[in-house]
Amino acid sequence: MKRGTSRDIRTANRYEVLRQIIASSPTSRQELAAATGLSLATVATLVGELLDLRMITEVGFEDSAGGRPRGLVAVNASGGALIGVDIAETYVHVELFDLALNVLARAEENMRPGESRPEQVVGHVTAAVGSVVAQAGVEAARVLGVGVSVPGQVDRDTGIAEYAPNWDWHDVPLLDLLSEHIAYPLYLDNPLRASAVAELWFGAARGHGDAVVVNLGTGVGAGLVLGGGLHRGVSNSAGEWGHTTLVLDGRLCRCGNHGCVETYVGALGIMQNLRELSPQSPLLHPGDQTATIDALAAGVAAGEQVAVKVVRDTARYLGAAVAVLVNVLNPEVVVLSSWVAARLGEPLLEEVREAVARHALKRPLAASRIVLSAIPTDPVCLGAATFALEGALQRVGQRSTKRATPARSRTAPAS
Amino acid sequence: MKRGTSRDIRTANRYEVLRQIIASSPTSRQELAAATGLSLATVATLVGELLDLRMITEVGFEDSAGGRPRGLVAVNASGGALIGVDIAETYVHVELFDLALNVLARAEENMRPGESRPEQVVGHVTAAVGSVVAQAGVEAARVLGVGVSVPGQVDRDTGIAEYAPNWDWHDVPLLDLLSEHIAYPLYLDNPLRASAVAELWFGAARGHGDAVVVNLGTGVGAGLVLGGGLHRGVSNSAGEWGHTTLVLDGRLCRCGNHGCVETYVGALGIMQNLRELSPQSPLLHPGDQTATIDALAAGVAAGEQVAVKVVRDTARYLGAAVAVLVNVLNPEVVVLSSWVAARLGEPLLEEVREAVARHALKRPLAASRIVLSAIPTDPVCLGAATFALEGALQRVGQRSTKRATPARSRTAPAS
Ligand SMILES: [Zn+2]
Ligand SMILES: [Zn+2]
Repeated sequence: MKRGTSRDIRTANRYEVLRQIIASSPTSRQELAAATGLSLATVATLVGELLDLRMITEVGFEDSAGGRPRGLVAVNASGGALIGVDIAETYVHVELFDLALNVLARAEENMRPGESRPEQVVGHVTAAVGSVVAQAGVEAARVLGVGVSVPGQVDRDTGIAEYAPNWDWHDVPLLDLLSEHIAYPLYLDNPLRASAVAELWFGAARGHGDAVVVNLGTGVGAGLVLGGGLHRGVSNSAGEWGHTTLVLDGRLCRCGNHGCVETYVGALGIMQNLRELSPQSPLLHPGDQTATIDALAAGVAAGEQVAVKVVRDTARYLGAAVAVLVNVLNPEVVVLSSWVAARLGEPLLEEVREAVARHALKRPLAASRIVLSAIPTDPVCLGAATFALEGALQRVGQRSTKRATPARSRTAPAS
Repeated sequence: MKRGTSRDIRTANRYEVLRQIIASSPTSRQELAAATGLSLATVATLVGELLDLRMITEVGFEDSAGGRPRGLVAVNASGGALIGVDIAETYVHVELFDLALNVLARAEENMRPGESRPEQVVGHVTAAVGSVVAQAGVEAARVLGVGVSVPGQVDRDTGIAEYAPNWDWHDVPLLDLLSEHIAYPLYLDNPLRASAVAELWFGAARGHGDAVVVNLGTGVGAGLVLGGGLHRGVSNSAGEWGHTTLVLDGRLCRCGNHGCVETYVGALGIMQNLRELSPQSPLLHPGDQTATIDALAAGVAAGEQVAVKVVRDTARYLGAAVAVLVNVLNPEVVVLSSWVAARLGEPLLEEVREAVARHALKRPLAASRIVLSAIPTDPVCLGAATFALEGALQRVGQRSTKRATPARSRTAPAS
């Protein structure tokens, strides 16, 4: 792996400048240079590119103390639309964003248990993408891309879902299947990296060099922001913390191993924690993860002992496992994300903080904050849309150096 | 944390170019540009700086097919000396290197149990540093710096050893103490990062973006090379994998927690594995880690069942714990380093590979090689000397931007 070629650095700088413009529109080239650490000349070049792409616009001038008035730029919200697709075990969420990453339209399709053949999933995604484009009334030509997040291990270059443990998918050519129905540029990745990039651009990881985004849903994993960028690993499969061993010879996991973190702190693991504590509990909705987690959250709010105990037991497992990430990576912030974290909220967070403190070393512990994700929408949709935005920004560089466009990119309008 | 300021990038590029020159002297600017991905203009500037510093020299020309002859440069081995200090639980090793990182002199001081007050350690280091300078007969003015590795958590900016669990050191101002006796520029870090930087510059991590260097000694930890550079974390304490929980409520660790990786695969942990299997084994040398590990290595070589079983049990623990690093970081290579790994060698490696394969996910597993360190000298000394080399290269940038030199740098000759 080569790092730091001038084209990589240029793309990273382009991300950084647009990120900063989105966060602080309107802003000046001088402010951007100060905020990013880049030279004014570099900022001016990158701002020029973004203006050419109509991703940003000139919006007037501000007085500078004693000097010439400074030109202001702002994100051109209507300069394009981005679509984020969150394919999860039980649902498909799709959101359409403007370039300021405001949600313009949403669609949701529920997937019944067993309804998980690739063709079925592709059908749900196609319907929901069509729905958001129609709802928002955007022209097809303005859709810059569709980011698709699918659980498990994915090859983003080939668009293949290599392994999705929940559905027993092996080497499903998901982007090829989707491209038969969807004509926008498509980008594939997984929810760990989608939620991490969402926090990096718009959430708690912004401005932090090292952050960990812990996803707690049906599946469990950690998206890693290291050195200010997404850490993918050599084969784009970093972050599989949910399938690291927490209990030697422990519970059997769907990945085939025993004692994985996910089997104790994923939605199904939490159901098992409840079952072991109180097999007849009315909080337990067999076969319905969402209802059970909701019942637990309500139970904790009402002070029910069983619910409180289950959340505490879960937090103890989670604390030991999060402490691994704190000790190994020494991040500035750990973000708890995804639907289980969102629903169990503050009571889970409090217990997790205590448990991490019992397991982590003092020095890395003192440097880390643990927080709940503050992203107000589905972070995986937002992150998937961000991949489409990054893809559009990367194509700029590829055009100017005569490189091939990504395999799945098309310029034709939507079907 | 800010990343990617132009000064940081320039320093990283300077490291990269010198690393490449050391690896492939003599070489041309054109070859350096091709190997590093930097532009020829950038390479030419950096080569000019290194020539000015006399770290490299012009060594002639080579014909280029049809073009002008190309100037060749090579590392100027005698252009300076670097000293690496490896302070371990039972010994102090010191090595003096030329600029091609050849060892010119070695000194070793043994530390008896209990002989671990900071003043005693400083005495040993001072004596050994004086010895290697005298042995090598180098002028004091040619010593570019001394890198010092001390176990535990260190603050490299202040030169304070914050916490060394083996000695119960808390906030020892080690560089201040050393600078009363040693007048060369001093650099403090810990063995995890020293061995990682040694592999990054000279070993198995060279040319790999993502690598993990697993240190197996009395202490246990993982040095991380991510994105082509050392990953330090926000407070320079990344890599404390030895103190992550492997067995919930397991063995009591010297860090105060239970079930840490180190208590099962560090030298003392391996002694405990042996004790639990065969309390009366003649392989067990109570109070002598080195003798016990040596006896185990000899036992395995002779096919003794108890020794084989202890190494297998240790590898099972180690495999589960290394799989955590493989799944979370998805590295290209995992290097087993430090004295326990060196002594148990191939038989341990084979068992570890099998155990990791049982615990890691297929995709990251397929991308990772697991190897023994091939560095022929003490990797911690080599890495500590490399920190001194990096420090010298960084001072170039700091001089040219009028920044302060590091707190511990002096230009006076050695005492
Ligand atoms: Zn698993
Ligand atoms: Zn410990």
